[in-house]
Amino acid sequence: VTTLAVLCGGVGAARFLRGVVSAGLAPDTTAIVNTADDAVLHGLYVSPDLDTCAYTLSGAIDPERGWGLAGESWAFMGALARFENVGRHNGYAVPTWFNLGDRDLATHAYRTARLAQGATLTQVTAEITEAFDVPVRLLPMTDGHVATKLTISDGESIEREVDFQEYFVGRRHSVPVTAVRFDGVEGAQATDAVISSLRNADRVVIAPSNPIVSIGPLLALPGLADAIDRNRTVAVSPIVAGSALKGPADRLLGELGHEASVVGVARLYAPHARWLVIDDADADLADDVRASGLEPIVTSTVMSTPEIAAALAHTCAGAPA
Amino acid sequence: VTTLAVLCGGVGAARFLRGVVSAGLAPDTTAIVNTADDAVLHGLYVSPDLDTCAYTLSGAIDPERGWGLAGESWAFMGALARFENVGRHNGYAVPTWFNLGDRDLATHAYRTARLAQGATLTQVTAEITEAFDVPVRLLPMTDGHVATKLTISDGESIEREVDFQEYFVGRRHSVPVTAVRFDGVEGAQATDAVISSLRNADRVVIAPSNPIVSIGPLLALPGLADAIDRNRTVAVSPIVAGSALKGPADRLLGELGHEASVVGVARLYAPHARWLVIDDADADLADDVRASGLEPIVTSTVMSTPEIAAALAHTCAGAPA
Repeated sequence: VTTLAVLCGGVGAARFLRGVVSAGLAPDTTAIVNTADDAVLHGLYVSPDLDTCAYTLSGAIDPERGWGLAGESWAFMGALARFENVGRHNGYAVPTWFNLGDRDLATHAYRTARLAQGATLTQVTAEITEAFDVPVRLLPMTDGHVATKLTISDGESIEREVDFQEYFVGRRHSVPVTAVRFDGVEGAQATDAVISSLRNADRVVIAPSNPIVSIGPLLALPGLADAIDRNRTVAVSPIVAGSALKGPADRLLGELGHEASVVGVARLYAPHARWLVIDDADADLADDVRASGLEPIVTSTVMSTPEIAAALAHTCAGAPA
Repeated sequence: VTTLAVLCGGVGAARFLRGVVSAGLAPDTTAIVNTADDAVLHGLYVSPDLDTCAYTLSGAIDPERGWGLAGESWAFMGALARFENVGRHNGYAVPTWFNLGDRDLATHAYRTARLAQGATLTQVTAEITEAFDVPVRLLPMTDGHVATKLTISDGESIEREVDFQEYFVGRRHSVPVTAVRFDGVEGAQATDAVISSLRNADRVVIAPSNPIVSIGPLLALPGLADAIDRNRTVAVSPIVAGSALKGPADRLLGELGHEASVVGVARLYAPHARWLVIDDADADLADDVRASGLEPIVTSTVMSTPEIAAALAHTCAGAPA
């Protein structure tokens, strides 16, 4: 039996974890999930990456959108629009750009109530995954507070720092970014559960998530990177043929001075991982990956079927192939 | 023009205020609303009496239920059920007994977000009533925290103190009550807006609301009762022929040692009001009301049509008739 610890963002990681389940590795897998995208909206604590992983693994996810619950309704969002004008006149920009489905709200309500009672996010996450029958253990990276902040440059090159969700959802990640930082990360720490799952894992996997804003906060968290044994760690490139399958990873890499390719990913992960799984489409860059300090594993990484996802999970668990 | 200040609970007061609107008195009326029933549920600040007044006056209320919004959906509540078991196993009783409609949640979300920004409940209430186009000025009785607590006695005469909403909604106000107190009332105070609207009113009206748990907190609030000029104050009995039209006022009066009749109401309000409006059905008790220290006004008080409600509002504004 191979024990896995998987560093996770949202959608890409969730699909990889579904492969872990298909591969029969779920009982021995711990997913360590980015929480620097978490936000308090309307007083409710929203944890997008944890929820995307939980909903995907429970089968409750909306398969078209890739986030939120299937069969969702939007009456809350519709009713919220009524307050937009009066909010604006009183200095409150009602976040109507962040879609919270009526059913999804129940998850945030439960989480918010339990956190208010003093439960840790680790504990509440265990409860939510129990309620959703999630077959993989999900851990938030920290019980502390870390918040990704991005400096964006607007049309007339005026720079402004915004929260992750305003960038990602509010601006649909379509504005130039000149800097990223993880507010509070120095004072936060990886939980004991995170550290021990990393130490005990036969393989640590860096899921095919955004290296900057999903995996970045995890690796920046005091204690976390040190608990990773590079020689047992395999990363999966989220960049295929120079593009991110979803989200702004390619664009962000370029804007922040990295190469938007498997080679750029290799350079970022070289201090932390021994292997980099790259797609067949990038086979011609295998030597450049090796030159960047990682052993390339070339295979199908585009998880368009459950079989491909399961094979990818097996590849990571068994590296070197 | 007669300026009115109306002390209000929920449903009964809201119907009276609708009469005020029909009577053309809305522009000169301030409603001062009980907030001791307010609750934080799932991290959201819920203000039942303020919302019942706002929704009723805007025409958004569900006319069948008498609370919440018309055309409401309940996806949130349905999804919340998923968390009941896991909550219970972890010491959290998910309040699935308190129905929050999907659209109604937007009001609580807006209120919660604005309070978190530091706005007062008075300010947020003004914003919500603006968003709902409410034609009467609504004021919460206080910007402080007051919470009604009831001592209930369970089947085997074990006494236990519960919050108002657990009694009223959770237990459907069908358990014996042995005591009522207003937690925090000594440290709270009526707002300046409340005090000045009471001082400036030509008539103060005590709406046909529950004398114990709706009007009780208002009169107990430091500064509020003192701002009421008894000689300009008219109360409307919420008890008709010994029964409350809605809610537990009759039962509560009896359980707490009062008479469940217009005479019991008269005794409670004698220190604060000069007139008591009683229904034609109670005409035979007019002398007993007078003996209790209030001048009886006998008329139709069951607001089954807009015309009756408007006439009742006119009666109160013009007392003595």
